[in-house]
Amino acid sequence: MKSIMDCLNYDDFGNLEIDSIKVSDISQKFETPLYIMSEKKIRENCRKYIKASKKFFGNKFQILYASKAFSCKHMYKIINEENLGTDVVSEGELFTALSSDFPTEKIYFHGNNKSYNELKMAVEKNVGKIIVDNIRELTLLNEISKEMKKITNILIRIKPGVEAHTHEFIKTGVIDSKFGNDINSKECEEIIKNTRNMQNIKLIGLHCHIGSQIFSHEPFELACEIMLKFIAKIKKEYNIKINELNLGGGFGVKYIKNDLNIQYENFIEKISNKIFEVCEKFNVEHPKILLEPGRSIVANSGITVYTVGSIKNIPNVRKYVLVDGGMNDNPRYIMYGAKYEIIPVKTSFKKTQEKVTVAGKCCESGDIISKNILIEPVKINDQIAVLCTGAYNFSMASNYNRIPRLPVVMVSNGQLKLIVKRETLEDITKNDL
Amino acid sequence: MKSIMDCLNYDDFGNLEIDSIKVSDISQKFETPLYIMSEKKIRENCRKYIKASKKFFGNKFQILYASKAFSCKHMYKIINEENLGTDVVSEGELFTALSSDFPTEKIYFHGNNKSYNELKMAVEKNVGKIIVDNIRELTLLNEISKEMKKITNILIRIKPGVEAHTHEFIKTGVIDSKFGNDINSKECEEIIKNTRNMQNIKLIGLHCHIGSQIFSHEPFELACEIMLKFIAKIKKEYNIKINELNLGGGFGVKYIKNDLNIQYENFIEKISNKIFEVCEKFNVEHPKILLEPGRSIVANSGITVYTVGSIKNIPNVRKYVLVDGGMNDNPRYIMYGAKYEIIPVKTSFKKTQEKVTVAGKCCESGDIISKNILIEPVKINDQIAVLCTGAYNFSMASNYNRIPRLPVVMVSNGQLKLIVKRETLEDITKNDL
Repeated sequence: MKSIMDCLNYDDFGNLEIDSIKVSDISQKFETPLYIMSEKKIRENCRKYIKASKKFFGNKFQILYASKAFSCKHMYKIINEENLGTDVVSEGELFTALSSDFPTEKIYFHGNNKSYNELKMAVEKNVGKIIVDNIRELTLLNEISKEMKKITNILIRIKPGVEAHTHEFIKTGVIDSKFGNDINSKECEEIIKNTRNMQNIKLIGLHCHIGSQIFSHEPFELACEIMLKFIAKIKKEYNIKINELNLGGGFGVKYIKNDLNIQYENFIEKISNKIFEVCEKFNVEHPKILLEPGRSIVANSGITVYTVGSIKNIPNVRKYVLVDGGMNDNPRYIMYGAKYEIIPVKTSFKKTQEKVTVAGKCCESGDIISKNILIEPVKINDQIAVLCTGAYNFSMASNYNRIPRLPVVMVSNGQLKLIVKRETLEDITKNDL
Repeated sequence: MKSIMDCLNYDDFGNLEIDSIKVSDISQKFETPLYIMSEKKIRENCRKYIKASKKFFGNKFQILYASKAFSCKHMYKIINEENLGTDVVSEGELFTALSSDFPTEKIYFHGNNKSYNELKMAVEKNVGKIIVDNIRELTLLNEISKEMKKITNILIRIKPGVEAHTHEFIKTGVIDSKFGNDINSKECEEIIKNTRNMQNIKLIGLHCHIGSQIFSHEPFELACEIMLKFIAKIKKEYNIKINELNLGGGFGVKYIKNDLNIQYENFIEKISNKIFEVCEKFNVEHPKILLEPGRSIVANSGITVYTVGSIKNIPNVRKYVLVDGGMNDNPRYIMYGAKYEIIPVKTSFKKTQEKVTVAGKCCESGDIISKNILIEPVKINDQIAVLCTGAYNFSMASNYNRIPRLPVVMVSNGQLKLIVKRETLEDITKNDL
């Protein structure tokens, strides 16, 4: 047996296993291409956050799973059982969470441009808290809450001006962002002051999000310091007590060998120490701390299994391995130039590797899964597994080229659970008139 | 009345019209965000190709609409009525074309990694021609055709090594491509020779595709020269007569003011002249010429209408105009850094413009529709129209953030036809178990 990473290993005969079930058995049953996820791994990831948070924040914390990484009915059941809350960013995610009886009080509603209908739905369904992005939304939300005779608990999204270094397209929290309010701006002051005069709004907390794929705790510590200083200011100047500090998500995930492997416990300890230190410094009561991991809950629980179709060797240029999926099920290369590790579903245990580019079947040159990666030589009809595809693959999938979206099979307590069905051709044309 | 471009103009009161119908009336009826397309413009675009081709190629041509730009049942009805054929790249596109009774003999089946099921479906349904990408596919196709006792007409996809200058991600036809066979390679010779021994395959033609968004006819002329020389060689060396030369698509579309506006008639004249010249030079009979426009048939027939939600002015940095759609309905900025013109649905006719970045409502910093564009100042609740979104918007749309996909409304002979319904929240969760 050879352990690969997380929930994956090869058995003695070279068969890739996920949570001790042969991947080839799963792909035979459900056909390729398909996503497979380990429920055990998702639960482990949840528990890491809970355990570390309990240790360092006591009972003053709440972990919110960021749905956008991977949202479907079954996922909300798992995270509810693991005592996480969730953040949703649209009517669709909220609808999905509610469809799986997710407790509304543990739902936080995000978004930089929520619609009237979304806000109305959130108030109507008694969503726990709404993270208000801007003054227009605040006014609208107050009106809606008034109409419905409710008091809505809110957090306000702040841009602390901390920039975590990462790919240009997946950074947020900097001043040049469509999200939230610049902490040093007049608008930010206004939105906070305005809440005092709104009968149907209760300002509970502040939110910030400093980026994605962050591997260092320093930017989080810096964000804590800035946000807590601001909380002290709000207390002093407007007599508003902030009970919740939501530090957002962005915790880095090890996609490929060269990526770091974050020890979340250590990460949270560092953040916690900083919070205690800063609370004392600014004479602020330790707020409830919220974290919103998404990618780090699901990414490494999932793989995508493809069958190799053709192989195209272009001498002195590149060897293409063409698979039966593509940018329709994983657009992260064409969007971000993302890198993935890819391994065979059946290994020969030989050490030989060759450099190939794994590309998909879409009619588009940029339809690549992973460029210039090292992999044990594969043949036509072999199956390969792309690792760490549990986040932002299913959720970003399209029907480009009218290709049906893949099913998601969850390995759950030694059983296979189909949690999302494969789309049919009829599904694709269903709305065509 | 002020003409904007193509099918769009402002009436005397400043209302944007598409084929003389007020856009605000359409958006009131169908709500925003939505795609609106002009059937007249699509038909005009089709006719430009047909007219110029008739003039310069006589009856030796076939225009194939490249479905991947925009595929839905109604679209196939239009192009069939306009006497175009179509190219499909998947089971899903073929299924859609067949669902709208598109004549199978006018269907060409593309793809760099067609599955067994796709090839089988194509043979079973008597698809006109299959563009074979590689030797493995050729062998498979021969077997399938044999099983079904049919003779399948094929074209072979060739890489002529011509590179048309364009964005890195949307170039094809160069040697480093997952598509087709390098014209100078042994594999290319093999695949052509092999067809002679295959009882159930008939080699009819060759195909090449040299890129996307091409604004110059020179690369096409060069491709013609290389391909016809190759056709002469095949005739001489293997005694195979090539009857069809498919030059693919890639004809540039004017997205923004700075883009050129191609005169397709002139373009086709230049290509035709070259073909006559080269046919004479290599003593080759003028083959039937096939062109595969996709983008240039639909792009400028379509607009996307959004409602402005919030507006966020970050002093000295950027002004964000936030709309009720985003990368879920138009991922071309996040994929290619694409640029679009955006205009108000109601203009004041004032010349004042300001620089803004139009961003969407997805939880992602890269969720931008058009960056740093000049637009007449807009207010909250105003509607804006993104121009030239008829291609690769609907077809590339996703449910990222579980946002339902937009409807497509076709303006058709002064009538509004809903041709694709808006997705519902139930549609999105339909396959969740």
